[in-house]
Amino acid sequence: MAVSLEKIEPIICDRKEQYLAQLFTLLRQKSISTQNDGIVECAELLREFMEEIGIQTRLIETKGNPVVYGQLLKNESAFTLLIYGHYDVQPPDPLEEWLSPPFEPTIRDGKIYCRGAGDNKGQLMAQVLAVKTYLDAYGELPINVKFVFEGEEERSSVNLPSFVQENKELLKADLVYTSDGPSHESGNPLILLGVRGNLKVQLTAAGADWDNHSGNKGNIVPNPVWKLIDLFHTLRDGNERVLIEGFYDNIRQPTEFELRLLKEIPYNRDEISEKIGYKDLALDGETYYRRLMFEPTFNISGFHSGYGGNGVKTIIPSKATAKMDIRLVADQDPEDIYQKFVRHVKKHAPDIDVQFMGAVDPSRTSSNHELVKVVTSAVREAYQLEPIIQPSLGGSLPDYVWTKLLGLPSIVVPYANFDEANHSPNENLNIDHFFNGIKCTCHVIHKLGEHSRTSITI
Amino acid sequence: MAVSLEKIEPIICDRKEQYLAQLFTLLRQKSISTQNDGIVECAELLREFMEEIGIQTRLIETKGNPVVYGQLLKNESAFTLLIYGHYDVQPPDPLEEWLSPPFEPTIRDGKIYCRGAGDNKGQLMAQVLAVKTYLDAYGELPINVKFVFEGEEERSSVNLPSFVQENKELLKADLVYTSDGPSHESGNPLILLGVRGNLKVQLTAAGADWDNHSGNKGNIVPNPVWKLIDLFHTLRDGNERVLIEGFYDNIRQPTEFELRLLKEIPYNRDEISEKIGYKDLALDGETYYRRLMFEPTFNISGFHSGYGGNGVKTIIPSKATAKMDIRLVADQDPEDIYQKFVRHVKKHAPDIDVQFMGAVDPSRTSSNHELVKVVTSAVREAYQLEPIIQPSLGGSLPDYVWTKLLGLPSIVVPYANFDEANHSPNENLNIDHFFNGIKCTCHVIHKLGEHSRTSITI
Repeated sequence: MAVSLEKIEPIICDRKEQYLAQLFTLLRQKSISTQNDGIVECAELLREFMEEIGIQTRLIETKGNPVVYGQLLKNESAFTLLIYGHYDVQPPDPLEEWLSPPFEPTIRDGKIYCRGAGDNKGQLMAQVLAVKTYLDAYGELPINVKFVFEGEEERSSVNLPSFVQENKELLKADLVYTSDGPSHESGNPLILLGVRGNLKVQLTAAGADWDNHSGNKGNIVPNPVWKLIDLFHTLRDGNERVLIEGFYDNIRQPTEFELRLLKEIPYNRDEISEKIGYKDLALDGETYYRRLMFEPTFNISGFHSGYGGNGVKTIIPSKATAKMDIRLVADQDPEDIYQKFVRHVKKHAPDIDVQFMGAVDPSRTSSNHELVKVVTSAVREAYQLEPIIQPSLGGSLPDYVWTKLLGLPSIVVPYANFDEANHSPNENLNIDHFFNGIKCTCHVIHKLGEHSRTSITI
Repeated sequence: MAVSLEKIEPIICDRKEQYLAQLFTLLRQKSISTQNDGIVECAELLREFMEEIGIQTRLIETKGNPVVYGQLLKNESAFTLLIYGHYDVQPPDPLEEWLSPPFEPTIRDGKIYCRGAGDNKGQLMAQVLAVKTYLDAYGELPINVKFVFEGEEERSSVNLPSFVQENKELLKADLVYTSDGPSHESGNPLILLGVRGNLKVQLTAAGADWDNHSGNKGNIVPNPVWKLIDLFHTLRDGNERVLIEGFYDNIRQPTEFELRLLKEIPYNRDEISEKIGYKDLALDGETYYRRLMFEPTFNISGFHSGYGGNGVKTIIPSKATAKMDIRLVADQDPEDIYQKFVRHVKKHAPDIDVQFMGAVDPSRTSSNHELVKVVTSAVREAYQLEPIIQPSLGGSLPDYVWTKLLGLPSIVVPYANFDEANHSPNENLNIDHFFNGIKCTCHVIHKLGEHSRTSITI
């Protein structure tokens, strides 16, 4: 089989500059979904590029940002792979921490620095360019391929579920394949079979209608910062256990097999410690992965009130705001957790406002699925390294729309480097990872073609 | 006596436009001490203006911003009044809440809107223009007058104590007189015999060296917001009592006489409620004033960490900062409280950094002092209203440099309107209050002249 893919590598090698230039064009186009900046321009740019390759494309409107849909069909009965990705990106701030402009792709030390380089434009382009490479090498694909590139992943994919519900016929497929997130720090390829979900909320506490002087009004008007602090204290205990009633009720416990997989994942504490910028990391590997895959989080992603400049300003702030994102594990239901959260706040701090800011369900595909084995074998051949199989990603993707809404198996194979710094300043994508991603997708397409021919003959 | 001051009122009346224009020139000159913006320019402008009136002036350098010193001496043996004020102002943000530009004095509904209008340029100019008015009316002052206008009051008057220590001879006086802060909401003139002190600190908690993705690193790197929240919970209980060991140890309890004064201060809850923008104000008058004068505060004036823009950003912040200002009552010592604060933090959260950001001692002058009666009588005649005597201001002024370092009585008579919104957007000074301030200073100077002649004959 490896022989039949021998044309792939030389084509990629010849076209490195061209493929990078095409990626850079997409990276330069801002597409910040939480700020509605450049979205439609980016979607159109991506669509045109896919069309040029020979993929049938169209923008499908949603209640929010358009989906870039594409398909390249062999025939009705062929195996169908649905490739999912997203063309929107996170806001770039804090701007002052970027070493090069966030929307000007810049190569340093073999890496492309740009917002969206890893998350997700670089990985998405690897998929598209794999199709171009395969077509140019062999004239046609061995399977049907469909693409769904959405523009709202960084705002919780709010309209993806309804898009999927409304387009079930169009999206008919045998397997969903995603490349997003960082690959494993060991350098071995990673195969992810699920994700944590999340729930995002914003808390707002009010004091007086405007900021007051902390001397002349001190002890008279309430301070909304203290209101939030007092509420937070009722939400979590000193051992970091969430005190919302029923928060842990529905958590699916890991199976013996999954716990065994944890132990097999390579873990180099010093390396991780350096890569995440936290020298005091003291966890062992099993705990590290268990916390990432099987335990929910209760994170405060922002807390803002009053004066934040240099020096001092003696005021009692009129308002305090906190943003939270809570990662949920299989089978926690974001809607259920949100209701419990609201109930808790109403009980302990009824005058604090809770705003729902988005949610994604968790998702998990069985480690025993036949296609997991096929993809694992393709990835192994592409990288010539043993893939690491993780039952879940620490982060969130709207994977449940495939597993829960369409009932399909879903496999995530991240192409970005472990230290891609997604969501942070100086986000980057290792150039080798980009080209290996193109190669890997070619192998997956090829192997699924072989598998489906075998399946049919059987 | 009232007869002998009959020339004052007509002069003020004739010169309203001129006096306002002179104030506006000073207001337009920025002088933000915490940002070192426009300080020297403002000091020079003020000095020149005083010089034109006939006051001997000079800028006296300190380790920080210069003091504008002035004197107009009758003779060595005459009674000496030392007038204190400050020419620096608070930063104007949040800028978007100003209805007119913060450094362009704008008249609306009989009020001058501008940063510094009330705090303290308008009141300081009322003192200076009183001298001009008195001189033009009567050719000379009945007493010696000295002026100390500092440029660092809004950053805790950090260099005023050493300035006073180093210039004891120059500053020899019989009484210190200050006009700062808002007058009483009842409209009656206010006489203040002390201030609360304050202690300002900044707390900084660190997590990883940079922001991390809340999914891929969630449960792995610590969140500095939670660190601060956990610390704050050890600092104050649910009844708002400060839990720092020894925090309440040295508080001077109010005397029977002071408590009686509290009951005599007019209190209109609805009016205050409206003026401070807090409709749920439920305190009775005695509690209101006791909390402002005799109880310390424990205020958080700013709390900032992570993402604060629109929408969401799923990060674990790398840093969280909180600014506190703690008002202290007589005889709490800021240095002592700071040491106790640091000890508490070292015990409960040793990795949180505490930064000292400035302090002012509390101060109180005896309600029975003879000069309190003289000034009260002058104020009564100027306003034709019964003055309200308050043992303390809720806010802070470096009054202790007079009472503690020089051993002088010190009296504060605020000229600004109650709703001057000092330290807030749309700071303002009622025009009538400005002209009444000029008149009041003339009465105080005159009455002190009469008093000193009487004293000498006796």
